[in-house]
Amino acid sequence: MSGGKKAVVLLSGGLDSTTCAAIAKSDGFDVYALTMAYGQRHTCEIEAADRVAKSFDVKKHLTVEIDLRQFGGSALTSDIDVPKHDNVTDIGTEIPVTYVPARNTVFLSYALAWAEVLGAQDIFIGVNALDYSGYPDCRPEYIDAFTRMANLATKAGVTGEAPVRIHTPLIDLTKAQIVRRGLDLGVDYGMTTSCYDPDEQGRACGRCDACLLRLRGFKENGIDDPGQYQE
Amino acid sequence: MSGGKKAVVLLSGGLDSTTCAAIAKSDGFDVYALTMAYGQRHTCEIEAADRVAKSFDVKKHLTVEIDLRQFGGSALTSDIDVPKHDNVTDIGTEIPVTYVPARNTVFLSYALAWAEVLGAQDIFIGVNALDYSGYPDCRPEYIDAFTRMANLATKAGVTGEAPVRIHTPLIDLTKAQIVRRGLDLGVDYGMTTSCYDPDEQGRACGRCDACLLRLRGFKENGIDDPGQYQE
Repeated sequence: MSGGKKAVVLLSGGLDSTTCAAIAKSDGFDVYALTMAYGQRHTCEIEAADRVAKSFDVKKHLTVEIDLRQFGGSALTSDIDVPKHDNVTDIGTEIPVTYVPARNTVFLSYALAWAEVLGAQDIFIGVNALDYSGYPDCRPEYIDAFTRMANLATKAGVTGEAPVRIHTPLIDLTKAQIVRRGLDLGVDYGMTTSCYDPDEQGRACGRCDACLLRLRGFKENGIDDPGQYQE
Repeated sequence: MSGGKKAVVLLSGGLDSTTCAAIAKSDGFDVYALTMAYGQRHTCEIEAADRVAKSFDVKKHLTVEIDLRQFGGSALTSDIDVPKHDNVTDIGTEIPVTYVPARNTVFLSYALAWAEVLGAQDIFIGVNALDYSGYPDCRPEYIDAFTRMANLATKAGVTGEAPVRIHTPLIDLTKAQIVRRGLDLGVDYGMTTSCYDPDEQGRACGRCDACLLRLRGFKENGIDDPGQYQE
């Protein structure tokens, strides 16, 4: 089912962005999936994004290499260790070392560039303000400010004809609600991977912030996470 | 002379960004030069940026490859012809085909990422609203909106401790005033290149918008442009 409206959807291959893509599709958008390969240590995320894009039959899937490693500053792009915990309640409330500097700003900028070329007014990003682990660029006020900037940055901002909208359908959902929403839309979460520190085979560690939040999301729905975990 | 304050300066190797870097340096900043290699057809710009960075003795110079070609949509990144004119007065007022979608947004996002890692609060960009040929992302209201967004995107936005400032020292100068300012600061414009369509040897065409505006800037100062031109 397609309404012919184009949407650029940021797709990492994780649980959130996969759910977000499912929502865009169910809202009737033609999905243009954009995966950012940003020097993260887990290339299995990119493979997951490929699986998801194929399974959702997207109009086009682009993977863009970006080089945030040159800047350093994050456990996801440099040699800082990813923190592990035994329980989800051990996750701190401060900004974690897995924070990537200005990540969503860089990602949304690329999405904006592609949207402008496609003539798409709609961008989807699976940010989440509840389980966001303290990332500043997952908050609604940030998204609002980006939208305002975007509409001054582009031709549409000058001509006033086609303002850009940033859709954040997960922003106020708990992880359990996100999982529920995706299951209702028929998402196979076995395709996805969320771990910050997977092994060589791409199996999740089960103990980083992303794994703990994900596992709790499934548990609260009373079902097993179909993702691949170590041992 | 250095005040120990760090500034990230976007440096293309053209006349404007080189002048901007000279101003940042004369304002007492330690310059961290950031060059974006964005699939433009003129790699001689990158060589110019290297020359400028060396001549200014910057603290660090990073060149980041970004891949806007995948998106298409601009004469600077795809196969659309660069428009040529005989006179500067023939330049149109509509948005030209040399506009790169969301370019300054992508560039500033990277600058923001690096600034955050460096602990720098200052970013310099040589945008110009007068001779801007109709690019939407060169206007003051765009820069203001980016700044607001940036201060919600980063750790500093959460803690409120170190707001980011975007410096646009050229924004309301004519090209002639920019040239004058640079000459007063001792800039050797022979290092720089501005042409949208240089030849194999990196010599400027003299007839694209960028060349015509640059040539007029020197002429209005009563001096010859020391850049290399064809024939």
